[in-house]
Amino acid sequence: MKTLRIVVIGAGAIGREHIERIQAKMANAAVVAVCDINADNAQLMADKWGVRIEPDMHAVIAAPDVDAVVVACYDPAHAEAVLHCIAAGKPVFCEKPMATTQEDCRAIVDAEMAFGRKLVQVGFQRRYDKGYLQLKEILSSREFGAPLLVHCAHRNASVADNYDTSYAVYSTAIHEIDAIHWLIDDEYVSAQVIIPGSTRHTRPDFLKDPQLMILRTAKGVVIDIEVFVNCRYGYDIQCEICCEDAIIKLPEPSFPAVRKDAMLTVALETDWKQRFIEAYDVEFEDWVSSTLRGEVNGPTAWDGYVAAVTADALVRSQTTGEVVDIATGKTPEFYA
Amino acid sequence: MKTLRIVVIGAGAIGREHIERIQAKMANAAVVAVCDINADNAQLMADKWGVRIEPDMHAVIAAPDVDAVVVACYDPAHAEAVLHCIAAGKPVFCEKPMATTQEDCRAIVDAEMAFGRKLVQVGFQRRYDKGYLQLKEILSSREFGAPLLVHCAHRNASVADNYDTSYAVYSTAIHEIDAIHWLIDDEYVSAQVIIPGSTRHTRPDFLKDPQLMILRTAKGVVIDIEVFVNCRYGYDIQCEICCEDAIIKLPEPSFPAVRKDAMLTVALETDWKQRFIEAYDVEFEDWVSSTLRGEVNGPTAWDGYVAAVTADALVRSQTTGEVVDIATGKTPEFYA
Amino acid sequence: MKTLRIVVIGAGAIGREHIERIQAKMANAAVVAVCDINADNAQLMADKWGVRIEPDMHAVIAAPDVDAVVVACYDPAHAEAVLHCIAAGKPVFCEKPMATTQEDCRAIVDAEMAFGRKLVQVGFQRRYDKGYLQLKEILSSREFGAPLLVHCAHRNASVADNYDTSYAVYSTAIHEIDAIHWLIDDEYVSAQVIIPGSTRHTRPDFLKDPQLMILRTAKGVVIDIEVFVNCRYGYDIQCEICCEDAIIKLPEPSFPAVRKDAMLTVALETDWKQRFIEAYDVEFEDWVSSTLRGEVNGPTAWDGYVAAVTADALVRSQTTGEVVDIATGKTPEFYA
Amino acid sequence: MKTLRIVVIGAGAIGREHIERIQAKMANAAVVAVCDINADNAQLMADKWGVRIEPDMHAVIAAPDVDAVVVACYDPAHAEAVLHCIAAGKPVFCEKPMATTQEDCRAIVDAEMAFGRKLVQVGFQRRYDKGYLQLKEILSSREFGAPLLVHCAHRNASVADNYDTSYAVYSTAIHEIDAIHWLIDDEYVSAQVIIPGSTRHTRPDFLKDPQLMILRTAKGVVIDIEVFVNCRYGYDIQCEICCEDAIIKLPEPSFPAVRKDAMLTVALETDWKQRFIEAYDVEFEDWVSSTLRGEVNGPTAWDGYVAAVTADALVRSQTTGEVVDIATGKTPEFYA
Repeated sequence: MKTLRIVVIGAGAIGREHIERIQAKMANAAVVAVCDINADNAQLMADKWGVRIEPDMHAVIAAPDVDAVVVACYDPAHAEAVLHCIAAGKPVFCEKPMATTQEDCRAIVDAEMAFGRKLVQVGFQRRYDKGYLQLKEILSSREFGAPLLVHCAHRNASVADNYDTSYAVYSTAIHEIDAIHWLIDDEYVSAQVIIPGSTRHTRPDFLKDPQLMILRTAKGVVIDIEVFVNCRYGYDIQCEICCEDAIIKLPEPSFPAVRKDAMLTVALETDWKQRFIEAYDVEFEDWVSSTLRGEVNGPTAWDGYVAAVTADALVRSQTTGEVVDIATGKTPEFYA
Repeated sequence: MKTLRIVVIGAGAIGREHIERIQAKMANAAVVAVCDINADNAQLMADKWGVRIEPDMHAVIAAPDVDAVVVACYDPAHAEAVLHCIAAGKPVFCEKPMATTQEDCRAIVDAEMAFGRKLVQVGFQRRYDKGYLQLKEILSSREFGAPLLVHCAHRNASVADNYDTSYAVYSTAIHEIDAIHWLIDDEYVSAQVIIPGSTRHTRPDFLKDPQLMILRTAKGVVIDIEVFVNCRYGYDIQCEICCEDAIIKLPEPSFPAVRKDAMLTVALETDWKQRFIEAYDVEFEDWVSSTLRGEVNGPTAWDGYVAAVTADALVRSQTTGEVVDIATGKTPEFYA
Repeated sequence: MKTLRIVVIGAGAIGREHIERIQAKMANAAVVAVCDINADNAQLMADKWGVRIEPDMHAVIAAPDVDAVVVACYDPAHAEAVLHCIAAGKPVFCEKPMATTQEDCRAIVDAEMAFGRKLVQVGFQRRYDKGYLQLKEILSSREFGAPLLVHCAHRNASVADNYDTSYAVYSTAIHEIDAIHWLIDDEYVSAQVIIPGSTRHTRPDFLKDPQLMILRTAKGVVIDIEVFVNCRYGYDIQCEICCEDAIIKLPEPSFPAVRKDAMLTVALETDWKQRFIEAYDVEFEDWVSSTLRGEVNGPTAWDGYVAAVTADALVRSQTTGEVVDIATGKTPEFYA
Repeated sequence: MKTLRIVVIGAGAIGREHIERIQAKMANAAVVAVCDINADNAQLMADKWGVRIEPDMHAVIAAPDVDAVVVACYDPAHAEAVLHCIAAGKPVFCEKPMATTQEDCRAIVDAEMAFGRKLVQVGFQRRYDKGYLQLKEILSSREFGAPLLVHCAHRNASVADNYDTSYAVYSTAIHEIDAIHWLIDDEYVSAQVIIPGSTRHTRPDFLKDPQLMILRTAKGVVIDIEVFVNCRYGYDIQCEICCEDAIIKLPEPSFPAVRKDAMLTVALETDWKQRFIEAYDVEFEDWVSSTLRGEVNGPTAWDGYVAAVTADALVRSQTTGEVVDIATGKTPEFYA
């Protein structure tokens, strides 16, 4: 069995998790090098896992003993790293967002198409979540007619201090943007954000919370997404797809039911890591094995671009409440 | 529309509830008289509802302006009252138990058969509960094969001080005894009680709690009934029927689901009145309208006898743990 | 116990149901007269229940042996009947809609305030549904913070041939309009309708289905209502209220769970009558007993007016998709 | 990071799965050799994974490049293999049953105690199932009082032709025997089997199905286990623990809910592999990492012995229906 030799660009919290996952759990992948502008982060990984430190990102991406790249550095640095990978012809797994502007996302798409072969996978882990996969499979295998409406909710107990109104799109709804587009296989054409009065648990001048986001697709599907990031009670992901002949709902995580004190109580999750920990594992296993086969099986650069354009449209509507057009154009043949 | 003129024998807590139900909620029934050895109880009802007080039970049962009788007096007095009704040819609704010994139950059955027409309905309200009716209807209408196993639980938060080990059968499991016999339409042939260590919330020398009761039917169905009357958390009735091709479960009462503090919580009921309040109403409506039509539609004297014999067998097994035979014999043609 | 003597105006399907309910099930109410422009309808009820036929609506409303009025005639005739009742000082239960224009609704409100005492109850039965009452009680009794968002769905398996796009508001969402306004005790300020591509099971030039309706309240609560009246699978009512500290969801009707053929299956309801049959009974019991006490306990003429104004705003938005203002003004002291 | 070098004894279906799991998914373990009396089985694994074939079980267990052993051969050969491992001082993972007689199980226990350090882990995967772990954690962390009753069900859609009445214990209930003993941390003292009439889907002279098995523990807990291996509808594992102050229930696998044709439907599993696939992975990861640390973390030889003695008692009761004593004696200090 071949082993995929990986360099990880960025050894912050998320980068270290990827290194841990690859080294401790994967039989067919190994981190050979780590590259971080913060020398301490890199040293930590070198000490723990014996991987070599590479200060020069360009050089290590091009290194002959590196088969593939994981980009987990500071968001604004993603685009440069991914473009280098394409230039070097190296498969790359890039954490979301693929880039922080739609222009940079487009540049990556163009570079990849120019290169002529798909190299980029974006880290939208929902597509590897067991529940979403069941949803996708049921939607595909049974005859339920066309989807018409999708209701989503994305709730966090609370968020970090720097999380402002736009983060509700860029950090939060971005996952629904990718997941729904994949689930119903359709293209977004417009966006609108409807903002209720905010919870007392936030400062509404800084973060309006909750928000109700509306997307419309080319085929006329309307998607509503409740984003509520100070919901206090837990981390909760809901998704319900209304088709012409049936309605299908994402399952909730399961816990034992306790009957006590006149109440039937089932735990809820409180943390996105807990909710998607298995999806991250499956995502990486799939990325490694598809990369070893020379394929990109997960979310592509095009999906990263679609997410960026859609997110920008939602953020524009946050200010005005108006419907904003989304003009990604048709999916290129290259990505279809 | 005719009105059923009723005398209520016994105006204690349960008798008063029946009077209240008939007077306040029913368009086709009226209490005309009340009879109680406790003069205060009777006076209370006379004052509130203007019904006449009749000191002589025999006389009032026979009175020409009395069409039917509700027996809700002290349990040991049930048999005498019911036998009077049969002698007078008056339809009678008798609270459970129909009588406190199987000999008295048998005497009622024999008297009714001798009279030649069914007059007696016993107050097993489960048969009028929406969930049990749904269960019965699904079992009857779909092809699930023969029933093989039935799992029941009957749990109370707590019980009165005088509730001893035998009450677990006579007051509690008695409802399952009647309901399962009706649901699966089969006859009991043996009983066994298995007694675990008791909860610290009881004095095991007085009340062993919980208990696991096992019944077997003529067709070989095994029924297990958990009786747990100090379960603390609420009032909870469970029933699951395992057939050859499907398993069907009694629904639970529904309450709003609340997501709060990392928990999804749904209320449970705490009181049998809350659980079966609607069943009592339906039971009485059915008794009144079937009595007006000259029929007995609910649990018969035979069902009351079967319950008594089965309960005695379970109580005998409480001491020994041995399997005890139940010999009711076949259901007479008269009751089939 | 007093008996409320009632005239029923309109003995069509719904009027006959009310007569049946009062005569067969209620101990403290009686229909004494019926009035219908269709003589056959009236005769049917006279024959079955022995009620007298009154051809003149004005006369019978004013008749000294009539204590209260039920208006169940043709919708456009509601306003005149209700105004007559107010003029005669008679309590009236009017089926929804109270009137077919907001001007007529306003006229009723003004007449009632001029009369000086509340007489009118409008037939919004949701407020008497067990699940909604549980929701209301939980919302009131626990400290969940302010409501922020409400998600509703109102789904019918199919609808009659004459049901067009505007019916989705006037016949369907009208129930959510009243129920949510009551649940969260707040006033609507704007409406918007977002219309996805329609199901193949309808003609979209005649009926756009489904629709997503958005209401906003004075306190900033945003309510989204999915109306989907050709959903095929059943009759389904959903309501979820997102508060600052908890999320509460309307319970679903309960049925036995069946395990068969690799599926756990629970029945869904298919018919609004089945879903709300008990609510109609409770509604009428409450109307009769509160009327006997000289009170109006249920939805008032003001609620009928609010529903009419809100519905008109939604219907206007169906064409443009724009946000439309709702200007009912503050609830008058008289109705607060 | 160290790598655990493993020999697998027995390369039939289950052995091959273990080899696959170790080679494809584990970063800290490697199969170095395989040993099977069936040369084809061994060759298959040699070809696919490049492991060496060792014909002599004794030799390979003792080999210096072998750190640990997986025993997955024919059940009657387990005891000899495990005893060799103990003699060689090699950690061993033995598929259940540890041995086919309680005498052989006892011999393993005695040999291990004589050796002086725990080496044996038995393959009861339930202890690694997410739901059971949640149950264990909730039971341990919250104050629910003592357990009193445990209700279990173990249902298979169907079984192989050679599965007879005793298999219901040895192959099926054996998992509950180990899991409950672990969950409630108590010792079995007696067993009883109650056998209802059998499903038409079996030949009752060969396989009585379903069966109701009753176990009692030293502390007085009563456990009832429904075994129903021709239940037709799917693979279903139920477990409910009744404590003095609460009742806790094992969660069910989660699937999307589909609303269609008047039914709410959720898939059930049909296969034990599907149900416990993740538990097998977690079990092996835990065995490898605890073995690398020099520990036995999972079910011990004593647990294997307890299961064997308990199973024999149940099988004895299958014929008589009588209560049969279980005399494992107290857990030795060595295993406490």
